Amino acid sequence: MGEASLVFPADEYRARIARLQAGMAEQGLDALLLTSPADIFYTTGFLTRFWESPARPWFVVVPHAGDPVAVIPSIGADLMGRTWVSDIRTWDAPDPRDDGTSLLADALAQVVAPHGRIGLPMGPETHLRMPLQDFEAVRARLAPRRFVDATACVHRVREVKSEAEIGKIRSSCIIAARAFARVPEFAQAGRPLADVFRDFQIALLSEGADWVSYVAGGAGPDGYGDVISPAGAAPLQRGDVLMLDTGAVRDGYFCDFDRNFAIGPASDTARHAHAALWQATEDALTALRPGMLARDVHHLLSDGLRRRGMTPGGGRLGHGLGITLTEWPSFTPLDESPLRAGMVLTLEPGCLTTGQRIMVHEENIVLRADGPELLSPRAPEDLPEIMP
Amino acid sequence: MGEASLVFPADEYRARIARLQAGMAEQGLDALLLTSPADIFYTTGFLTRFWESPARPWFVVVPHAGDPVAVIPSIGADLMGRTWVSDIRTWDAPDPRDDGTSLLADALAQVVAPHGRIGLPMGPETHLRMPLQDFEAVRARLAPRRFVDATACVHRVREVKSEAEIGKIRSSCIIAARAFARVPEFAQAGRPLADVFRDFQIALLSEGADWVSYVAGGAGPDGYGDVISPAGAAPLQRGDVLMLDTGAVRDGYFCDFDRNFAIGPASDTARHAHAALWQATEDALTALRPGMLARDVHHLLSDGLRRRGMTPGGGRLGHGLGITLTEWPSFTPLDESPLRAGMVLTLEPGCLTTGQRIMVHEENIVLRADGPELLSPRAPEDLPEIMP
Repeated sequence: MGEASLVFPADEYRARIARLQAGMAEQGLDALLLTSPADIFYTTGFLTRFWESPARPWFVVVPHAGDPVAVIPSIGADLMGRTWVSDIRTWDAPDPRDDGTSLLADALAQVVAPHGRIGLPMGPETHLRMPLQDFEAVRARLAPRRFVDATACVHRVREVKSEAEIGKIRSSCIIAARAFARVPEFAQAGRPLADVFRDFQIALLSEGADWVSYVAGGAGPDGYGDVISPAGAAPLQRGDVLMLDTGAVRDGYFCDFDRNFAIGPASDTARHAHAALWQATEDALTALRPGMLARDVHHLLSDGLRRRGMTPGGGRLGHGLGITLTEWPSFTPLDESPLRAGMVLTLEPGCLTTGQRIMVHEENIVLRADGPELLSPRAPEDLPEIMP
Repeated sequence: MGEASLVFPADEYRARIARLQAGMAEQGLDALLLTSPADIFYTTGFLTRFWESPARPWFVVVPHAGDPVAVIPSIGADLMGRTWVSDIRTWDAPDPRDDGTSLLADALAQVVAPHGRIGLPMGPETHLRMPLQDFEAVRARLAPRRFVDATACVHRVREVKSEAEIGKIRSSCIIAARAFARVPEFAQAGRPLADVFRDFQIALLSEGADWVSYVAGGAGPDGYGDVISPAGAAPLQRGDVLMLDTGAVRDGYFCDFDRNFAIGPASDTARHAHAALWQATEDALTALRPGMLARDVHHLLSDGLRRRGMTPGGGRLGHGLGITLTEWPSFTPLDESPLRAGMVLTLEPGCLTTGQRIMVHEENIVLRADGPELLSPRAPEDLPEIMP
């Protein structure tokens, strides 16, 4: 029971499978078919950057009882063999005649009776990571077995993190915080934003990130135009607000938070916006409790901004976090997902400043029974100024 | 016609759309629906790392004539507005009531008559990057319009690179080559492999990579167990062969090649395997021509290894390359894709060494009418030795 696996001991994965199987039983699912990097990593510990290659599909089948079955390209056999999974079936992919579909259909047919139900995540924030034609062939071959949506089944399990997972996310957050502390070393007026992004990634790696899956940001007077762009060649200018946002990864777990810096003395507008964002976050850090809904957090943050004279802007005001950069729920007026103890979340208020510009601020928390515990070391209330 | 866009001038994208539309006309497609990061970047120039967030779907519709339509979350409006695309339709995602499906269905209905055909990549090496339930809702709503597979239509266009694209891939290769040249600075016996991977990523960024989407490798006496694993904590040892493989990105274009290093003096086995891999690659560099099939390259490389006393191993022996780490075709015995001038390809022979170990070697080329042109500066024939 305590044997080795990758990233965590095998017991961590066994507990996850048990929770998934409890959810499957409630929904009357005989098996679960998983195809996404995150779901496969979650159930097996199979951690690789090889997902960058779209050439091959990978499958994990979770039966209603017993251990999962990995149905994977043979190029992954060595690595999967070092996880806790023992039933590993491989084929030489890519195979234009049959790229794992027969092997997958056989694995599912073994654990699902002809009138059984196979759960597959098909809902919000999911993608089927296999060719659609191959899926339709597998579905036809397995009929009268039915594929039904298992998004909720997977999400209700993955959204509540174990202490081991929380520890990993905290580690990523601490690495990013150390890199943010070094931003004044390389973000001076006159430096192209593209070079600042490179140096920030170097700082993240130097501080212990395994890899840096996400860096975005922007810079401009009193704010920036959006929060998802790669860097351009334009140099930072005195008077800019620079924002850097990162999803750095350690042991397969992300952080996702940002920090703002004034290049030279901060303008009153930027200083006031930063304080309002910080204080609205403080409101949420005080008030959040399990049992609230996702939309309540949106209300808390946007109300906090309005009471301080700011107009909310920049999209949703936070989201889940874990083995992908963003997870459900979303802090929007429409998301009625209940918040649960053990959820790891970002608080990400944004507000309009001048012109078409915005400023955003972000922290990472784990929600405990008595409220949020910060995972990202708290930003300073006052917008830091980088002086030449 | 010559207006600005991101990454390339607008004319580059117009030429791509014209080639896609010629393929669509041949296949009788009234529109093309694209959902993947690569296809959206290819047609619009929309370059972002925000794809790391699986929360939102993104769509591009290519009509049978005229410019593409972007149907995207409003968070991307600013960035898409800086591309050459002018018809940009947005919604506030994520929206649990309707996450862009009505907007997408309307966009398709405008350009496809009720009995028309909509092309969608559904075949090998494709994924539908939207929730399957949403796709099924859009498909039902658009009936009797039919969705048909458009994998070949997209692949035949994307696989032949423009000179502008070849220049970008060459730039990425040169950046990686400079980083490989620095490996002896940080890969000494006693250093944990995880630290070597970090330093290699830092070297790639320092040499000009925008980001590093892929690093893999391995180390062991006379070779390594697989080629897709992240690094472990075990230190390099004298007598190891270290292999590092990278997909570093500049302006959205990947390189994908590896280099081997002996830690201390190379063993005869490792030295001989490296020379055989290098010489088999040399055979292919001499013999490859447009009109050959992908399987012919497999034959060339595996035959070259066998003639030098080695057993081929390690999976396919090369593949396409461009805006993803790997593209079609695959150098396997089964792939009958014709090679065309303008294809960017990796030559990636692998062979068994001792025990369960392998060694691999990789170069990147563009196939010209008269044969391959190297994009990666050629590896040395003799396995380099890193001496303390």
